[in-house]
Amino acid sequence: MDIRIPLGFEMAGVHCRIKRDPQKPDLTLIVSDRPCAAAGVYTRNLVFAAPVALDSSRTPSDQIRVVVVNSGNANACTGERGMRDAQEMARLAAESVGAKAHQALVLSTGIIGEFMPMDKIEQGIAAAAVKLGRSEACLLSAARGMLTTDTVHKVAGQTVTIDGREVSILGMAKGAAMMGPNMATMLAVVMTDAPLDPDTVQELLSTTTDKTFNCMSVDGHMSTNDTVLFLANGAVGGDLLEGAALEEFRKAFEEVCEDLARSIPADGEGCTHLVTLDVEGCADRESARRLARTVANSVLVKTAIAGADPNWGRIVSAAGYAGVPFDPSQVCLHLNGTLLYENGAPVPFDQKAVSQSIRDGKDVHIVLRFGEGNASIRFWTTDLTTEYVRLNADYHT
Amino acid sequence: MDIRIPLGFEMAGVHCRIKRDPQKPDLTLIVSDRPCAAAGVYTRNLVFAAPVALDSSRTPSDQIRVVVVNSGNANACTGERGMRDAQEMARLAAESVGAKAHQALVLSTGIIGEFMPMDKIEQGIAAAAVKLGRSEACLLSAARGMLTTDTVHKVAGQTVTIDGREVSILGMAKGAAMMGPNMATMLAVVMTDAPLDPDTVQELLSTTTDKTFNCMSVDGHMSTNDTVLFLANGAVGGDLLEGAALEEFRKAFEEVCEDLARSIPADGEGCTHLVTLDVEGCADRESARRLARTVANSVLVKTAIAGADPNWGRIVSAAGYAGVPFDPSQVCLHLNGTLLYENGAPVPFDQKAVSQSIRDGKDVHIVLRFGEGNASIRFWTTDLTTEYVRLNADYHT
Repeated sequence: MDIRIPLGFEMAGVHCRIKRDPQKPDLTLIVSDRPCAAAGVYTRNLVFAAPVALDSSRTPSDQIRVVVVNSGNANACTGERGMRDAQEMARLAAESVGAKAHQALVLSTGIIGEFMPMDKIEQGIAAAAVKLGRSEACLLSAARGMLTTDTVHKVAGQTVTIDGREVSILGMAKGAAMMGPNMATMLAVVMTDAPLDPDTVQELLSTTTDKTFNCMSVDGHMSTNDTVLFLANGAVGGDLLEGAALEEFRKAFEEVCEDLARSIPADGEGCTHLVTLDVEGCADRESARRLARTVANSVLVKTAIAGADPNWGRIVSAAGYAGVPFDPSQVCLHLNGTLLYENGAPVPFDQKAVSQSIRDGKDVHIVLRFGEGNASIRFWTTDLTTEYVRLNADYHT
Repeated sequence: MDIRIPLGFEMAGVHCRIKRDPQKPDLTLIVSDRPCAAAGVYTRNLVFAAPVALDSSRTPSDQIRVVVVNSGNANACTGERGMRDAQEMARLAAESVGAKAHQALVLSTGIIGEFMPMDKIEQGIAAAAVKLGRSEACLLSAARGMLTTDTVHKVAGQTVTIDGREVSILGMAKGAAMMGPNMATMLAVVMTDAPLDPDTVQELLSTTTDKTFNCMSVDGHMSTNDTVLFLANGAVGGDLLEGAALEEFRKAFEEVCEDLARSIPADGEGCTHLVTLDVEGCADRESARRLARTVANSVLVKTAIAGADPNWGRIVSAAGYAGVPFDPSQVCLHLNGTLLYENGAPVPFDQKAVSQSIRDGKDVHIVLRFGEGNASIRFWTTDLTTEYVRLNADYHT
């Protein structure tokens, strides 16, 4: 795939000693040479971190020029001092590139309940500011600077020609742990050089997040810091995208967000399978979402997938307690293309073959169909392995 | 504790080859020599098993004389044939002791989606009927006949003197897997020789289940078969319990149900800790329940306990996504008596000492306090270990 840094953006990631390993960048700067239309979507957890409070007060905006990201410390549950630290991070980042304090947004991820090491942050911002660039190395160091327990960096992008203008979209994300619907511990920044106004940026982001970042879970735990930011600086020039041009842009934007969203459970802690769950035939989309989320978060469903067990009973019974009314006698279930359950009863199938199909690949496809209506949703989740438990039981040691 | 079989009841458990291991009973008969006032509380899963449909149509009742239980096959997702099989089980059990078909209730647990091996069931009922008795061996075989992956049988009881009458209460349960609020895969039968009318039996059971069996979870998965039955045969004689006498009975009944309820997560699959979670200071009991359930089902909270990690962040952030409004700045958290979090912020504490206190015992006590009101709830859950995942990923192998 053709991944380019959109025009007018520079970036860098550096190590400033928040993380122990000097090989791991822990501070990222993303800078636009001109003000961006910017929007955010944030965790709905009542216990939210200082950067979430700061950014949500600053978006939507048509003034944003800088995003500073640190990993290793989430600046959550840190009270008024945490809020002052987030503001100071924004100010330092903005000043480092000649912008005003209010033109910066802040993302933090990592340990919660500890104060931000502001001396390290200050040094990191200064170091990153002099390394800003548009090379592939700059892009990768920036993407790596936001990771925590991720095993791979997560970057997606597209360049498309819209109305004769070559428009680029670039996204980077971190995920892996403590994830769930409403994004849990998930950070993502998507940027473009397309010209868009702040309201459109917010609408695009909210609508697309609903279909992508909010349709995945690793462990169902929604975090204090989840944020997706979208910045559009219009560096390709020309009029604002509208009408058919905007819809062309939306399509590419959705694909980039879906690529990023899928990459997060695909790199879920200890995960050996990425499960794509299609819930179909529901009365409305919210019902489909509740059913999908309940199945996706069932530890019995997730352990069954880890064990390559085509256990229709766990899937169907998880749907049964989602709190969504449905007629059980109309439920049908396919797993990796094989019909396991039809009109409320299991059907004979080759258990060994389906089990082998789970074992053979990383991707598992479940289609759960109801007879209530025409609404559907696509959801992504992971299996649950002993390795996940080891990682999360031994986090501190 | 003084555990006696209430007057007028006999029981037996036998092996009838539904389970492979001949050492494990898989069919239990419980018989009263006279009709009982009987009530049930059932799974709220939309996908429920045939025995749930049968029993819920027969309770409350003043006619029940027999409960037949089998383990190894849940008779769930078996359609009309499953319903006929459940009726036939009831008929066979009733006839084996000279009762009428409609005087029997049926409980099944085990694999779902397979038809009941009725030939084995018929032989098992015949074998159990001739072994009925009131010895400790009868009690234990009956209790063991309902187990699946449980590692220990679960029996609780009390004998109390009420109005000069010595009244006994005896309960037996199975649990261990696929458990969650609204009882998940949980079966329990509680019996007494006290004289109670059916409406009182139903009220006692519903009210008490709400505080006991519905306040625990192992994995949050609600099953197709959950049932608690309560039978009162009045064999001690005298008038129906009312007023103060009824309240004395209620107290003992609640204690028996709580003992049984606690024994289920205590024997949760792979579990190394039993967590007692007190959620206090809520606006109403339903809010307290939602908060408790969300914290109790968080795999991150559960893995933290498995790792002896006093991770207040996971507990507080799980509360934050329960969907219950609260003021984060009033939240306080104690773990094993140590204050970890006060008025919305972590406080310094001896992490090693608290961690050691988790490691040193099986019981963990969490008190999560809000500033919204006076409602509270006590909830029981387990930790989540690699052993749980192994058990549930390799169930079929």
